[in-house]
Amino acid sequence: MPVFELAEYLDRVARVKARMAREGLDLLVVTDPANMNYLAGYDGWSFYVHQCLILAQNEDAPIWIGRAQDAEGARLTTWLPVDSVRGYPDHYVQSTERHPMDFVADLVADRGWGNGRIGTEQDAYYFNAACQAALESGLPNAGFADATLLVNWERAVKSDAEVAQLRIAGRIMEQVMDAALQATVPGARQSAVAAAALRAMPRGTPEHGGEYPGLLPPLLPTGESSGAPHLTWTDRAYERNEMAVFELGATRHRYHSPMVRSAWLGTPPDRVADLAKVVAEGLEAALDTAGPGVAAEDVSEAWRRVTARHGLEKKSRLGYSIGLGYPPDWGEHTISLRTEDRTELRANMAFHAIASLRRDEVTCKMSEAFLITETGAEALARVPRELFTRYCRKTKR
Amino acid sequence: MPVFELAEYLDRVARVKARMAREGLDLLVVTDPANMNYLAGYDGWSFYVHQCLILAQNEDAPIWIGRAQDAEGARLTTWLPVDSVRGYPDHYVQSTERHPMDFVADLVADRGWGNGRIGTEQDAYYFNAACQAALESGLPNAGFADATLLVNWERAVKSDAEVAQLRIAGRIMEQVMDAALQATVPGARQSAVAAAALRAMPRGTPEHGGEYPGLLPPLLPTGESSGAPHLTWTDRAYERNEMAVFELGATRHRYHSPMVRSAWLGTPPDRVADLAKVVAEGLEAALDTAGPGVAAEDVSEAWRRVTARHGLEKKSRLGYSIGLGYPPDWGEHTISLRTEDRTELRANMAFHAIASLRRDEVTCKMSEAFLITETGAEALARVPRELFTRYCRKTKR
Repeated sequence: MPVFELAEYLDRVARVKARMAREGLDLLVVTDPANMNYLAGYDGWSFYVHQCLILAQNEDAPIWIGRAQDAEGARLTTWLPVDSVRGYPDHYVQSTERHPMDFVADLVADRGWGNGRIGTEQDAYYFNAACQAALESGLPNAGFADATLLVNWERAVKSDAEVAQLRIAGRIMEQVMDAALQATVPGARQSAVAAAALRAMPRGTPEHGGEYPGLLPPLLPTGESSGAPHLTWTDRAYERNEMAVFELGATRHRYHSPMVRSAWLGTPPDRVADLAKVVAEGLEAALDTAGPGVAAEDVSEAWRRVTARHGLEKKSRLGYSIGLGYPPDWGEHTISLRTEDRTELRANMAFHAIASLRRDEVTCKMSEAFLITETGAEALARVPRELFTRYCRKTKR
Repeated sequence: MPVFELAEYLDRVARVKARMAREGLDLLVVTDPANMNYLAGYDGWSFYVHQCLILAQNEDAPIWIGRAQDAEGARLTTWLPVDSVRGYPDHYVQSTERHPMDFVADLVADRGWGNGRIGTEQDAYYFNAACQAALESGLPNAGFADATLLVNWERAVKSDAEVAQLRIAGRIMEQVMDAALQATVPGARQSAVAAAALRAMPRGTPEHGGEYPGLLPPLLPTGESSGAPHLTWTDRAYERNEMAVFELGATRHRYHSPMVRSAWLGTPPDRVADLAKVVAEGLEAALDTAGPGVAAEDVSEAWRRVTARHGLEKKSRLGYSIGLGYPPDWGEHTISLRTEDRTELRANMAFHAIASLRRDEVTCKMSEAFLITETGAEALARVPRELFTRYCRKTKR
C-alpha cells in the first residue's frame, strides 16, 4: 500500500542516514509529517496528536510511534515491519500528567540509545517546545542537536517516480483552476467559488483522484482584501470591476502542484491589463532563467529586473521549493527563490514561483509550479499565463 | 470585520488577564491560531509561518506579530488598533540565520517587558522548540512558564453569540453529511465522496456559507481500513457489503459541528445491524447523561455501561470539548469525556462524542456534537442516529 517501491524507501533511508553520519547523529526523531511520509510512506491525518519516526543509525527500518488507534493506519500505509509500529495508550492523548514524548523517550532508553547524540526537528511543525522538554528530561544522558531540515534537504531532488506524481498533480490543477474560474461571476458568493475548487481537488481527473493540499483552503483575496494574501473566503458576493485572485492547490499522493491566477470581473481597465502583462512577463523571465546549474537567486533576479523596469516591486520572496507536504504548507522550507539564496538548482527539483504586483490598490498575481529539467524548466500545469476575465457564466480571455 | 462585538473581545481579554494574574504572568505569548482568533479575531491561513499575539498585563490590546505581508489581513480581521499590528520583514521567513521569534523577543525587550514572567504555549501547535529557544535566548532576564491551555480553558464556556455560530455550523453539517451519503454508492470512487463532502462545507446553507474545518479532509475509513480512524481517502471504489464511515466537519466563523455516521453498502447482515444498535444506544445514553453539574467522566461511563453489557469496548476516549479551531484539530484540548476527567460540565460548553465499536472486523461509528444547555444536552445537527444503507442513488434507512 505504500506509494513507491520498497527500493525507493530504502534509498531514502540510506541517504538520510549518510547525512546523519556526517552530522554525527546516532538517532533522528522525525516529526514533520512530510518527512515521516518520505521515509516510511505513512499517510494519515493524525498529526493533531504527537507522533514520530525514530531512525537509528544501527537499525534498518525506522520505528513509527503514534497514538495506538493510528497504528492500524501505519500498518496499512507504510513498508515498516509489524514490530516497528508502536502505539502509545490513549491516556497519553492531551493529558496534563503525561506527554507522548515520555513514551518515546522510554522506548529510546529501552533500546539502548539513551546515551547517543539525538537530532530533533526543532523548527518543524508539530514538534513543539514540550516535545523537546519531554525528550530532554526522559533522556538525561543523551546529547541533543537541531536537525531541522535534515530530511527536507534530501527531498529537494525528486526521483522519476516522484516527478510522475508531480505531473499528475499538474493535470489535477488544470481541473481545479478551471472549476474556480467557471464559478466566479458577479453575484456569486466567495464561498461558492471555494466549494467549486474544493470539490475539484479530490475529484481530480478521470484517471486519478486528488487529495487535500498542504495549504488546503482556496485563498481568495478579493476586492478590498486583495492585498491580504492569506485570507480565505467569506460570504461576500463578487462584484463587477474588481480583481479576484485564486491561490489553489492540487495534490497526488501528497505531491503538490499549486497555482495562482487572477481574473477581472468585467473588462479590465488598461492600467489593470498593463499590470497583468508585467506580472506575466516577469514570471516568464523567471521560468526562462530557471534550469540546472542556475542559482536560486538568479531566478528571482530575472523577475526583479522586469518589475524594476516598470517601477514596481514585490517585497516578499518570489518562491520556494515544493514537493511532499501536509497542512499547513506545501513548501519544503529549504530553497527560497530570493536574494542571498545561492543554492544551485538541479534537475528534478520543483518550485513554486508567485509573481505578484500591486498598483493603485489593485493586486494581480500569477504563479507557476515548475520542474527543473535537464535543459530548463517545465510548468507542471498548463493554464494560460494571463489575466482572465469573468462576465456571466462565460469565460472570455 | 471581526465576527463579534468589541465588548465580547474585551471581555475575553479581561478574563485571560485575570487568569494570567492568578498564575503570576506579566506577559503571554499566544501562538495557537484558535487562541489568537479568540482574543483578537484574527483569521487567516498564515500559521504556516511563525506568528503570535503578545498580551501584556499592563496594556489594553494584544499586539499581533506576523509576517509583514499578513499584516493587512490582521488589520482587516481584528479589532486591534493599527499600531498593535506588527509585521516582520520577509527575510525572517524560513531563514537559517534568523528566527521570527528573535523579532518578537526584540519587541518585548523594547517595550520594557524583558524582565517579566512570560507564559508560552509550550504544548500548542506551531509553537515549536525553536520558538521557545529563540525567546529564551533573546530575553535572558525573563522568567518563562508553561501557559499551555491557559486561553483554551477560557474558551470552554461559550457566549450566546458563540453558541449561535455553533448552531449554524450544525445546520451546515446536515448538508455536508447528506452530500457524503448521497455520493456513496457501490462503484463510486472514495475521492468522489470526498469531493461531494468538501464542496458542501463552504457551500453551507442558503443563508450561511461555511469554512474549512480544523480537521479538514473527510475521513473515510472503509472496508479493510475501517479500523484505521485517521486515513482519508483513496481512488478505491466502494464495494457492496462493506461499511463506509464518514467523519466530517462543518464550521461557521471557525466554530465547529463535527459528525460521524456509518453506512452499509447493501442490506446489513444482522450482526452489523445489531452492532449499530449498540453504538446508537451507547451514544444516546451518553447524551442523556450529559448536562450541567455532571462530570465529564460520567458521560463516558454511561457509554461504557451500555457497551459492557454487550461485551464490547472502545479503548480511546469517548470525546472532547469543541468550539473554535484551526487545522489540524477542532478539539479544544481541555476537557475529555473519559475516565479520570472529573471536570464539571456547565451550560454553553460544547463536546464531540464519538461512539465507535468493532466486532468481527467491522467498525461502526456514530458521533454527535452537542451543547450543554440549562437542563441537559442538545445535538447541534439533526441527522438520524442510525446505520444508513446505500444501494444505488437512493437512500433507504
